[in-house]
Amino acid sequence: MKIIFHQTHHTIADFDNIFKYLQEQIKKSEDALHVFPELFLTGYPLQDLCIQKPFFEKYEALLKKVEKLSSKISSDSTYLFGGLSYEYNKNKIPQSIKNVVFKLSNKGLEKVYTKQLLPNYDIFDEQKYFTPGNESCVLKINDKNIGVLICEDMWSSSFHKKDPVQLLAEHTNKQQLDFIVNMSASPYSLGKNTKRLQRAQEISSLFQCPFLYINKVGAEDEILFDGKSFICDGEKIHKQAKSFEQETLNFNLDDFQYSFKINETKNESNTWEDLFQSRIQKQKDKTHSLIPWSDDDCAEVIKALSLGFQDYAKKCGFSNFTIALSGGMDSALVLSIMRLALKEGQYLEAIYMPSIHSSPLSYDLSISLCENLGIPLKSLPIKFLHSTTKNLFGQSFSQPFDGLTDENIQSRLRGTLLYTRSNQINSMVVNTSNKSELAVGYSTQYGDSVGAISLLGDIFKSEVYRLAEYINQKHNGLIPKEIITRPPTAELRPDQRDTDSLPEYKVLDAILDGILSYRYTQKDLIKLGFEEAEVQKVFDLYKRTEYKRYQFCPILKISSKSFGFGYRVPISKSSTFYNK
Amino acid sequence: MKIIFHQTHHTIADFDNIFKYLQEQIKKSEDALHVFPELFLTGYPLQDLCIQKPFFEKYEALLKKVEKLSSKISSDSTYLFGGLSYEYNKNKIPQSIKNVVFKLSNKGLEKVYTKQLLPNYDIFDEQKYFTPGNESCVLKINDKNIGVLICEDMWSSSFHKKDPVQLLAEHTNKQQLDFIVNMSASPYSLGKNTKRLQRAQEISSLFQCPFLYINKVGAEDEILFDGKSFICDGEKIHKQAKSFEQETLNFNLDDFQYSFKINETKNESNTWEDLFQSRIQKQKDKTHSLIPWSDDDCAEVIKALSLGFQDYAKKCGFSNFTIALSGGMDSALVLSIMRLALKEGQYLEAIYMPSIHSSPLSYDLSISLCENLGIPLKSLPIKFLHSTTKNLFGQSFSQPFDGLTDENIQSRLRGTLLYTRSNQINSMVVNTSNKSELAVGYSTQYGDSVGAISLLGDIFKSEVYRLAEYINQKHNGLIPKEIITRPPTAELRPDQRDTDSLPEYKVLDAILDGILSYRYTQKDLIKLGFEEAEVQKVFDLYKRTEYKRYQFCPILKISSKSFGFGYRVPISKSSTFYNK
Repeated sequence: MKIIFHQTHHTIADFDNIFKYLQEQIKKSEDALHVFPELFLTGYPLQDLCIQKPFFEKYEALLKKVEKLSSKISSDSTYLFGGLSYEYNKNKIPQSIKNVVFKLSNKGLEKVYTKQLLPNYDIFDEQKYFTPGNESCVLKINDKNIGVLICEDMWSSSFHKKDPVQLLAEHTNKQQLDFIVNMSASPYSLGKNTKRLQRAQEISSLFQCPFLYINKVGAEDEILFDGKSFICDGEKIHKQAKSFEQETLNFNLDDFQYSFKINETKNESNTWEDLFQSRIQKQKDKTHSLIPWSDDDCAEVIKALSLGFQDYAKKCGFSNFTIALSGGMDSALVLSIMRLALKEGQYLEAIYMPSIHSSPLSYDLSISLCENLGIPLKSLPIKFLHSTTKNLFGQSFSQPFDGLTDENIQSRLRGTLLYTRSNQINSMVVNTSNKSELAVGYSTQYGDSVGAISLLGDIFKSEVYRLAEYINQKHNGLIPKEIITRPPTAELRPDQRDTDSLPEYKVLDAILDGILSYRYTQKDLIKLGFEEAEVQKVFDLYKRTEYKRYQFCPILKISSKSFGFGYRVPISKSSTFYNK
Repeated sequence: MKIIFHQTHHTIADFDNIFKYLQEQIKKSEDALHVFPELFLTGYPLQDLCIQKPFFEKYEALLKKVEKLSSKISSDSTYLFGGLSYEYNKNKIPQSIKNVVFKLSNKGLEKVYTKQLLPNYDIFDEQKYFTPGNESCVLKINDKNIGVLICEDMWSSSFHKKDPVQLLAEHTNKQQLDFIVNMSASPYSLGKNTKRLQRAQEISSLFQCPFLYINKVGAEDEILFDGKSFICDGEKIHKQAKSFEQETLNFNLDDFQYSFKINETKNESNTWEDLFQSRIQKQKDKTHSLIPWSDDDCAEVIKALSLGFQDYAKKCGFSNFTIALSGGMDSALVLSIMRLALKEGQYLEAIYMPSIHSSPLSYDLSISLCENLGIPLKSLPIKFLHSTTKNLFGQSFSQPFDGLTDENIQSRLRGTLLYTRSNQINSMVVNTSNKSELAVGYSTQYGDSVGAISLLGDIFKSEVYRLAEYINQKHNGLIPKEIITRPPTAELRPDQRDTDSLPEYKVLDAILDGILSYRYTQKDLIKLGFEEAEVQKVFDLYKRTEYKRYQFCPILKISSKSFGFGYRVPISKSSTFYNK
């Protein structure tokens, strides 16, 4: 049986182009079973869009147009794609919305399956909008019996009372299926592919038939979809599509040699346990630190970030980019990743904004980096604006300032200049904060925390270094070595070092990962060997900086727990419970 | 039967004070049935806190302490309060969390009921965290049969498959209950009280017994709880607690004359229909505009906002406040509301930051307002900083700027100075944007849109005027009349008027309410009589300014659809579906 996987890449609600894609595939008239991702017709995640009348009215119009394509389809082709199915009340207000699979053939458009498990943890809000289905689906196409699932349906966990895989097994008596297809819009996180493959192997073994997994590609604000659609049969992964790229996978199921390894052990997956995962591990020297990233991990993350900012820019209509370069590690990494992913016709520039505390080294390193990358570096000194502001306060309030006030003003003046430049050339400002900074609030609100989107907001500082080293290894020392080796500093006061007020990053990041896994109390971390004073300091910083994270820009999500839409913590609360 | 309602006001997770309150009540040993709000023991909404180990470990410790209070309770007293009930897996990770009612008496602490309906629309995420119950509860206390419900349980709607009120009726055969008590943490919105009372009257009539409603008080970031606990019996509301204030309501149920009006009509409530409500109404002149606020509405909203910023300040540890005053309506209203709600020991100041485009009138009006309010006004001219920045760009880029870039720089310099002042005196900056501005993006990101919390972000501009007039009527023209009557302007270029780029506010606000109700397309609004060009303009502005709302501060929520946590719309999307 010939099957074509459409690992597509569309913008949410881009109905015209979504229709055009489908229409073109049908025009090609390749006789096959064509399979598309979950919610192909609308995009995902839609959130409130799906309850806005302008949205669902236009969507219903699309559905009608799609239905008419039926007459153009040969009797040997079938199209399976995801979409929404609405029921309305008498006032044309949605009463129920279902996440379904449509089957389009020369017999018409037919709704064949409704997603049973609606994920509602972390970034997922599906139970807010959708009504679950309650029936297994076995399609008969060209004499083949095909089990159909949508994304979360393949996972079993204590989040959900039922298990659609088990239900499908009961429904089919395990023997009768020729293959199972899971149509997904499954968000990326590091390690997710391995998890998907394992679960697919389990299900394939359980049913003794191939398991086909199709996933979409693209970035929707902070959420990345990696594609990596695949066909597995028992233990064997026969074919896998690229990550983060649109691709059409064309194959004949009969060509594959089936190789089973029966293994009926079914593990719980997507549980709280899973979501609470921590990446702290005991090292050989008996200290605990983050599991380091492999080269493959680094390559994958860089690909994810590249798609992330490019998609956001395209969907928001930007082709110019302005980055504030400090001579430090974070901005150098952001600039390098962006430069490597830059497309024809796009313009990328760096702005260096020295204050009286900026060292000449920072400027030299910025120049070297921009030379290596071949991008323009502009200098906008803030010294005079800084002293003018100080004078203004001295005059107006007879109350000059220093300390933190004086540090923050420098950062905010930079934010102001950066956005003035952004206005001037209609460029997108990409934020340069990392996850460690965000977690302890080591940044100035409306200062260095500004930006349209954050590339490193889900990447700890020690991982920032790891990525820089990986890039240098792959690209011949693109990033000047001294940027990586110099001690990190915000340069907001004389001789400032990050370590003046923070533990060294290796320790900080491990403690933070512990906190953000939600699995550790102060006592637990101290028991692992972290110093009590350091643990307490990190918890204290974390708990009183929620307000900074609240107003932060979207963060490209690459881990299972990112500060972004899925991280929901009240700002105002008594936070004494975090104490030892 | 003597009953005491504890309409309490605590901070989320403030376990020590929550325990102290309970302990003190028990010490007073007033023999009665003591009733507390939903999740009294933890606070609400908790979001991710309830899955963080430091939280649930300390909460379990609290539960143990509460249990021990049992020995101090007389045989004639019973305490009913809300709390959480956890089940853990072998790794001590929550497997299931239930929102329950505890009964504390001299017999011990007992979990008596689990909330059946978990709201999951708009700001509510309960299905993300909690497992629903599936049993009705009738408690026998002092020979009385008491039906128990938690908050959402009293509402029936198409959101939920079941109806706990109906189930309770079946369970009790409608006749046997002496009264029903609903323990709530029900967020405020304008008009919510009326809705609650109506539903209570329905249920009371259905069961032919009194219906007791207890609600908490307080502001949790953007979400306000108004209290207004009450006792109703059929049609009659016997007693109602204050709004937005902690109160103990002490009453004997036998004292009330029961007055029924049997009415078994049960309306659906809390439906999409309900949430999609629009406040546009046809006026006598046949145009459509917002239903105007009554004096009572104004009083209620001002009380809500006052509690909102005061609670946020208290919980975040601020007693100083800095407001940027422009001489316009919004900042004048914010300042006035805050002044009227100011407490002893708090410090409130206004900062006026004129640019070259600021008119002398703006300064004069700012002076008059601050004199009326008796608060200090500081002036910090941005003219020199503005010209310095322009020169800097001219020098560094040989590319001077004007137009929007030149407008935004003024606003951002003000944001920078405002936060410098905030740093200097450790004051909280309260945002002064209104809902109309937010909806069309008529503000500068990191400029006038800065702030720790927004007072007017859920209030349309025409309602801002309404509140100002109400305050002037109640407080003898506190706000200089010309602030209200002068044409609104951002004063960022010569002779600028809001109406240069926006429809007049009465029209704008009606169109916006239409858009935000999610019920109207462009065509629908044009059909109501709005001008096509204006409708299109407003939709265009709305759809391309999502990114500004994303990074905005928490907004005190006073309507059923606020731009805040419950408003979930992707930034990057194809927005052509909004077009006509």
